Amino acid sequence: MTSKIRLGIVGYGNLGKGAVEAIKQSPDMELVAVFTRRDPESLVLDIPGVKAVHISDASDYQAEIDVMLLCGGSATDLPEQTPHFASMFNTVDSFDTHAKIPEFYQAVNEVATKHNKTAIISVGWDPGLFSINRVMAEAILPSGETYTFWGKGLSQGHSDAVRRVEGVKNGVQYTIPAEQAIEKVRSGANPELTTSEKHRRVCYIVAEDGADKAAIENEIKTMPNYFADYDTEVNFISAEELARDHSKAPHGGFVIRGGNTGENNNQIYEFSLKLDSNPEFTASVLVAYARAAYRLSNENQFGAKTVYDVAPSYISPRSAEELRRDYL
Amino acid sequence: MTSKIRLGIVGYGNLGKGAVEAIKQSPDMELVAVFTRRDPESLVLDIPGVKAVHISDASDYQAEIDVMLLCGGSATDLPEQTPHFASMFNTVDSFDTHAKIPEFYQAVNEVATKHNKTAIISVGWDPGLFSINRVMAEAILPSGETYTFWGKGLSQGHSDAVRRVEGVKNGVQYTIPAEQAIEKVRSGANPELTTSEKHRRVCYIVAEDGADKAAIENEIKTMPNYFADYDTEVNFISAEELARDHSKAPHGGFVIRGGNTGENNNQIYEFSLKLDSNPEFTASVLVAYARAAYRLSNENQFGAKTVYDVAPSYISPRSAEELRRDYL
Repeated sequence: MTSKIRLGIVGYGNLGKGAVEAIKQSPDMELVAVFTRRDPESLVLDIPGVKAVHISDASDYQAEIDVMLLCGGSATDLPEQTPHFASMFNTVDSFDTHAKIPEFYQAVNEVATKHNKTAIISVGWDPGLFSINRVMAEAILPSGETYTFWGKGLSQGHSDAVRRVEGVKNGVQYTIPAEQAIEKVRSGANPELTTSEKHRRVCYIVAEDGADKAAIENEIKTMPNYFADYDTEVNFISAEELARDHSKAPHGGFVIRGGNTGENNNQIYEFSLKLDSNPEFTASVLVAYARAAYRLSNENQFGAKTVYDVAPSYISPRSAEELRRDYL
Repeated sequence: MTSKIRLGIVGYGNLGKGAVEAIKQSPDMELVAVFTRRDPESLVLDIPGVKAVHISDASDYQAEIDVMLLCGGSATDLPEQTPHFASMFNTVDSFDTHAKIPEFYQAVNEVATKHNKTAIISVGWDPGLFSINRVMAEAILPSGETYTFWGKGLSQGHSDAVRRVEGVKNGVQYTIPAEQAIEKVRSGANPELTTSEKHRRVCYIVAEDGADKAAIENEIKTMPNYFADYDTEVNFISAEELARDHSKAPHGGFVIRGGNTGENNNQIYEFSLKLDSNPEFTASVLVAYARAAYRLSNENQFGAKTVYDVAPSYISPRSAEELRRDYL
């Protein structure tokens, strides 16, 4: 019997919890410990044998963990945590601040290379699977246009924005791809589309008692950057309805390339996701790429890597023979 | 200036012609020669500097060609040609007889390894891009079901079959995915579906003068293996209509995985292609993977490879820095 890949999780928010679920579905992996900044005693882990450990004790686990899944946020956690942990462990993270990826890569690459570790950064679906499809579609169809649509999905930033409006007690915002725009892209017309032409925004708002709903609706719809440029819909609902119908974190989207070959033949390449749970899916991608980090590290391929550097076979638990025979 | 990747093409049918078109769209590549079993003088190549050469003289071009695109058929050409050419060149082919891939891989791997060549086999969209998506979707979502639908596409084998029916002068057959089945899969229901439940078949037939159309329709619809198990539609049209409306080779299809994570959250992963020209698209994939064959060979990664062994960055003309900055 081959031994299992031993994983640790840093951070026990939605992503970390999703990682626990994903590891349960992976017979070739085992979870050793969850590392937290909170009191480890406060973590409720219902998996036998898995320890909750304070994050400051992680260095004691270098011999017991093959790959560390970094499940913190991109704003403040990962810029610090990935370089820190990549000096001790192979890592996988979901750093998704697109504009800062080059400097993040540099910082992680330096540490990981120096300490002979493999650190796969910016894993998930965007960045991640969507990134792979943008690159592959363009490599295969050099003449054409690539479009990314997001949604239907709960947007954390926009939900925060509507909740700051006066008179709003609670609320959520969904980003929804504009069906007309998608159909135009799928037709091969390669239209010019702004982000606001590609998406509409739908809000579900619980107003405070006696609040001026018309004023709330107006303030949301005219909010610069967030809503003013978009086709925005505002719905008022009760606190009960919000809890009942809007407590999940669905997301998804589309990458579509309209390419042309030969005498103007349209070739439409499309990748899409429709996710009931964004954090659980992102965590599932992290766990699959942990397999790749483990294997790359065994091949002495150290340093920072992205999904672009990882061949598909590295994320699959199946053997090369099996893949050729049953999946090709 | 970096020098271009120098390509040769073996076989000048629809796939070889598609490869010429794809190379024209790739500024980092140049076509050196097309090799043919026919009289090279008979080839009409409208590209300056590109030679038409008899296939038996290919060995003279080992110093001039970095990667050879093998554009023959899977039934008889490639089982002979790939092992032959992989002793002299890095190669890419589109071998698509699924059941024979393991033995084909063995034969090619032996030759390519011995001669320090890189041979990427079974490249295209199925096998090829669809294969990648079947493996990645399952690796990410271990719990679930994967479905492959083909079409709308012209099926060569089924078109040949209808043309053999008595009274049929000419005809074509399209395989069309059953919309209801796709919708069921997209809903996350993970239904059990046979190939015949996933597809329907539509024929456009030109009957001979005075032929018994009812008999033709009946013979097609009851033909074992090909049509009997399917929802089959037979349309009679004129020779002019056939020439006008059915002379292209469209194809495409869908790979969909309905996965589950955590407490029964549905996660739908979908990849699809809608192609005006099947051979031009397949050739475009071959040309992109020729880039990978060239790079792998430069890294001394010799032997037979499949799309599972190729990281996305290897097929892109862009640098790793560019990909991280602009595409991740």
